[in-house]
Amino acid sequence: MNSEEALSALCTPALVVDLDKVKRNAEKMIERCQNLGVQLRPHMKTHKTLECADILTGGSRRCIVVSTLAEACFYADHGFDDILYAYSLPFDKVERCAALAERLDLFQVLLDHPHALDQLIKRPLKDGRLWRTEGAELTGVYAHCGNTYNCRGVEQIQAVAQETTDLTLQFMEKLKAAGVTCKSSIGSTPSCSHPVKDMAQLSEVHPGNYGFYDVQQSVIGSCTLKDVAVRVLTRVIGHCPHRNQLLIDCGWSGLSLDGAGKLPTGYAVIEGHPNLKLLSMTQEHGRVEPISGLLDYGKYPLGSLLTLIPYHSCASVAMHPVYYVHSEGRLLGKWTPTRGC
Amino acid sequence: MNSEEALSALCTPALVVDLDKVKRNAEKMIERCQNLGVQLRPHMKTHKTLECADILTGGSRRCIVVSTLAEACFYADHGFDDILYAYSLPFDKVERCAALAERLDLFQVLLDHPHALDQLIKRPLKDGRLWRTEGAELTGVYAHCGNTYNCRGVEQIQAVAQETTDLTLQFMEKLKAAGVTCKSSIGSTPSCSHPVKDMAQLSEVHPGNYGFYDVQQSVIGSCTLKDVAVRVLTRVIGHCPHRNQLLIDCGWSGLSLDGAGKLPTGYAVIEGHPNLKLLSMTQEHGRVEPISGLLDYGKYPLGSLLTLIPYHSCASVAMHPVYYVHSEGRLLGKWTPTRGC
Repeated sequence: MNSEEALSALCTPALVVDLDKVKRNAEKMIERCQNLGVQLRPHMKTHKTLECADILTGGSRRCIVVSTLAEACFYADHGFDDILYAYSLPFDKVERCAALAERLDLFQVLLDHPHALDQLIKRPLKDGRLWRTEGAELTGVYAHCGNTYNCRGVEQIQAVAQETTDLTLQFMEKLKAAGVTCKSSIGSTPSCSHPVKDMAQLSEVHPGNYGFYDVQQSVIGSCTLKDVAVRVLTRVIGHCPHRNQLLIDCGWSGLSLDGAGKLPTGYAVIEGHPNLKLLSMTQEHGRVEPISGLLDYGKYPLGSLLTLIPYHSCASVAMHPVYYVHSEGRLLGKWTPTRGC
Repeated sequence: MNSEEALSALCTPALVVDLDKVKRNAEKMIERCQNLGVQLRPHMKTHKTLECADILTGGSRRCIVVSTLAEACFYADHGFDDILYAYSLPFDKVERCAALAERLDLFQVLLDHPHALDQLIKRPLKDGRLWRTEGAELTGVYAHCGNTYNCRGVEQIQAVAQETTDLTLQFMEKLKAAGVTCKSSIGSTPSCSHPVKDMAQLSEVHPGNYGFYDVQQSVIGSCTLKDVAVRVLTRVIGHCPHRNQLLIDCGWSGLSLDGAGKLPTGYAVIEGHPNLKLLSMTQEHGRVEPISGLLDYGKYPLGSLLTLIPYHSCASVAMHPVYYVHSEGRLLGKWTPTRGC
């Protein structure tokens, strides 16, 4: 890609990533975890790219979480190791998990049912490797404080972070009393963006969305809108004065339908245009209308660019086979995510 | 792929296509158009694959509609021609359109604004080719009776089909009176599934969803649920008796969020289980609950398969990088769609 090429020359809809913001978000999280003295195990499920994984792991390519085996294989194929598959062992994927456990130094799976343990034991590993479950040896305890997503503001986030930490540590104490010592890991981008001191007593944390953040995280209070590193660029392609609407070239194939009904501005925040609402989307079209008043079409000529800040970045970047990466509007290259299960 | 491999051995969530149903849906549409004496120009936007395009065009690889230039290039690269880009000419894509017009025998673009005509004229074609717009020569008129999607039943569909046909033919008469003779094309899967006689006076029709169909089309009345050729296979991965719910391994990365609130059974119809509702989805998890009563967990052991019929096939297949194709449950191979804009 010609580095002189401007962001505004991209065919739309285009998913663009602000590299400086990703780096800043990553550095802050790394620093936060260092200050706490807790191991950071970043989740890959939002971006699913090698480049962002390098940034989030500080270049170590070690100690990551994935949500699919497609991700696990993708990262394993590119020299990543110490991969935790954060999904209660699916019975159709035991063989693929075993293959990963045999080729990596460390591949961790989650169990949430005795039947899952039976499934593992039925598939012994080659070369003298062991699932670290026989004889009930537990590697660790993993929790996701998903209820932070109902929080509004730092105080509420930290209350949930505290509660999850307390419950996890109490559980660790019970395990210890029963003679089991193991690791502990909790996660969620909100709680790791505003950690409480007691999280220092955990072994690991595993946030994921924070590399990109999104409008949802800004509403929760994990970040400000300025920290959000991703945008969907779209163009005005139609004027519909009879409906007081604009048509844009971004439909649900460019921006997720996730977040319906959550924002006064519809499916996204339209940067620099707080009075515009992304009302609805079909496959390749979006309908935009003013929250109040009549549209001034002179401000939105055909072909002009609008910038959408996604409600949920995990869901919106999932619609794009490629992300365009820039620094201060100068295109640097493309990131290609992995897909599938 | 081993042809003996069973559908039930696929890792889930998996998008599966019933080849026999696709062929039957395609044959019926071809026959319907032949009987009417109207040219069928199938839309590729639902499936975006070569294999399905071959079936829908009866192997001719001619006379198709696409919704993106990614599709246009994909089909042009594989020997398809006479491609209509059914999108009002986007100003950022004039150069890409021109390149397609220069390499294909026939590449058609839509104009809905005088400014778009200016954009074309500013980019003359090479080798003596002409945009067939200079001197205001019009190739045709294109309409999409999207309001058929509000219909319920054949009578309502045909009323809209009749209205759209009448309006289009009246417009053609006006053009003729002004000395302009050109083609006419209307579309939508509902109206083309139940055409009215007067559609014979049009040049072309351009339905798209009918190769796969979906629950939405069955609700409209375009087809029956038995005609729907696509499914998402998913597995039970958790029992949550405290919530009277099951967890399945299909979230919004396997099934579109489109259709929220439209069906009593949630985001899909769960085949063979009319009392189950797909209540909500996160990235890789779905929550299923009974419409009434308590779940009998014995009927849904961990690892067992459930089959989702998507509300909107265009949106759900868009979440899958590959489709698994079968005949009567025997896996035949994979189809790989194109993506992007």
